[in-house]
Amino acid sequence: MRIRIDLAYDGTDFKGWAKQPGLRTVQGDLEAALQMALRTPQVSVTCAGRTDTGVHARGQVTHVDVYEETLQATAGRTQSPPMEALGKRLNGILASDLRVKSVTEAPEGFDARFSAVWRRYAYRVADRPETTDPLARNHVLPHRNELDLAAMNEAARVLIGQHDFASFCKKREGATTIRTLLDLHWYRDIEDRAVATVRADAFCHNMVRALVGCMIAVGEGRHEPSWAADVLSAAQRDPAVIVVPPQGLTLEEVGYPAPHLMAQQAELSRVKREAAAAEDTHG
Amino acid sequence: MRIRIDLAYDGTDFKGWAKQPGLRTVQGDLEAALQMALRTPQVSVTCAGRTDTGVHARGQVTHVDVYEETLQATAGRTQSPPMEALGKRLNGILASDLRVKSVTEAPEGFDARFSAVWRRYAYRVADRPETTDPLARNHVLPHRNELDLAAMNEAARVLIGQHDFASFCKKREGATTIRTLLDLHWYRDIEDRAVATVRADAFCHNMVRALVGCMIAVGEGRHEPSWAADVLSAAQRDPAVIVVPPQGLTLEEVGYPAPHLMAQQAELSRVKREAAAAEDTHG
Repeated sequence: MRIRIDLAYDGTDFKGWAKQPGLRTVQGDLEAALQMALRTPQVSVTCAGRTDTGVHARGQVTHVDVYEETLQATAGRTQSPPMEALGKRLNGILASDLRVKSVTEAPEGFDARFSAVWRRYAYRVADRPETTDPLARNHVLPHRNELDLAAMNEAARVLIGQHDFASFCKKREGATTIRTLLDLHWYRDIEDRAVATVRADAFCHNMVRALVGCMIAVGEGRHEPSWAADVLSAAQRDPAVIVVPPQGLTLEEVGYPAPHLMAQQAELSRVKREAAAAEDTHG
Repeated sequence: MRIRIDLAYDGTDFKGWAKQPGLRTVQGDLEAALQMALRTPQVSVTCAGRTDTGVHARGQVTHVDVYEETLQATAGRTQSPPMEALGKRLNGILASDLRVKSVTEAPEGFDARFSAVWRRYAYRVADRPETTDPLARNHVLPHRNELDLAAMNEAARVLIGQHDFASFCKKREGATTIRTLLDLHWYRDIEDRAVATVRADAFCHNMVRALVGCMIAVGEGRHEPSWAADVLSAAQRDPAVIVVPPQGLTLEEVGYPAPHLMAQQAELSRVKREAAAAEDTHG
């Protein structure tokens, strides 16, 4: 059976999501905890958004396949329902910078990665000295100069929609850089920090941090808002676009379709992915 | 001249406010930074609320007396106004868990400690597993069981007002334990955490954490709400009242009177303090 595990983590002390020998990663810690909790030698976890080193998550979604008997055996020793028991056990094993928010039975056809229809990230900047909160320093980037959010939002407008984001991506062989950016805007939160909401069907590598870097250059007055359109249409990496540090970035939420559409969405993502790969390789 | 310095800090890695040889403290770090920034051999900083080891602050207020020439000399090398220049310089010297929010010239008669008319603290508890945020783990206490905030607020009501809080204080010779509790209530914040607001003219040692411990015992159903009144009227430390860990506690704000009343308030605080000490010693 497939279970869905929702996670939150402080990425500061992780070398990103993906398991790597000898390094502390979110996947590595979670799989080790699952093996211990389920007393099973091997588990493999899939996530919705593979976060980089230093990037945080409040809404990471994962799935893992387990034998129903294994799960029942784990819960059998407690009074709680099996999913709840597993969640408690995992939080007892995991360090305090990685927390299981919930464990639930996945709907038919659910795939944490391929069923997802969008990922939403936040990038937080403390650009006014009096708003720098030492209690939030792990996930908010301090910035010397105050940013012009109106100019940044003007720059953002042309980036929304379906485009080839090659200018904002680390190029990988055999992978398309066409993405649909659903939301991109800046606002001041209740703590008076500048916060970007960035939502897309999917992101290529470094894309959120390059988009934010481009807009910050505009917000500082180093470029006009129209510069973002120039960068986008060039369709190749522009060294003037700085990839901002990971510290300010948090994966906030992953969107999924209604339960009866999970399998269909997963199939659609796989077909699109294969078509894009084929196109890249052959033409 | 007297300057007011507003501070925020993550108390996790500090052994509290007060300077101690060989230990990292907020006062120690700030005084060392001031000595470096002002190129002066000796400064002495006074704060509004002497926080314990592990307690945080978003609204700590301090004052320090400096020679006007020293301040001018510091700023003379920059283009900024002297107060702003000093704030920037201090933040350049201090570690990221201690931030200067503002540096301003203190009004006539201002004393960070004695002019203060109230101190407001928040105590934050994540009592629902899905609300545990690893990004906030430094300043929010995780708690296994969900708390009954209505019962806790019922317990809180009898504690508000002027009372002898000896039951909630670590007794010190020659010091009164009579305080005026101005606010004490629990609410759920936007993250669904249980948060206590605790505001008083002043607090004796451990008082906030003992009050919170008493109310948490009620919120867990270990005691009836009326127990808080019993504890208060006993007027001596009750071992059933647990002093909760410092991690959840943050000094949020210090209240001061209008500028022209600063000196008067400071004088009043000193007189009250001396009268209480005399009473304790002699009668």
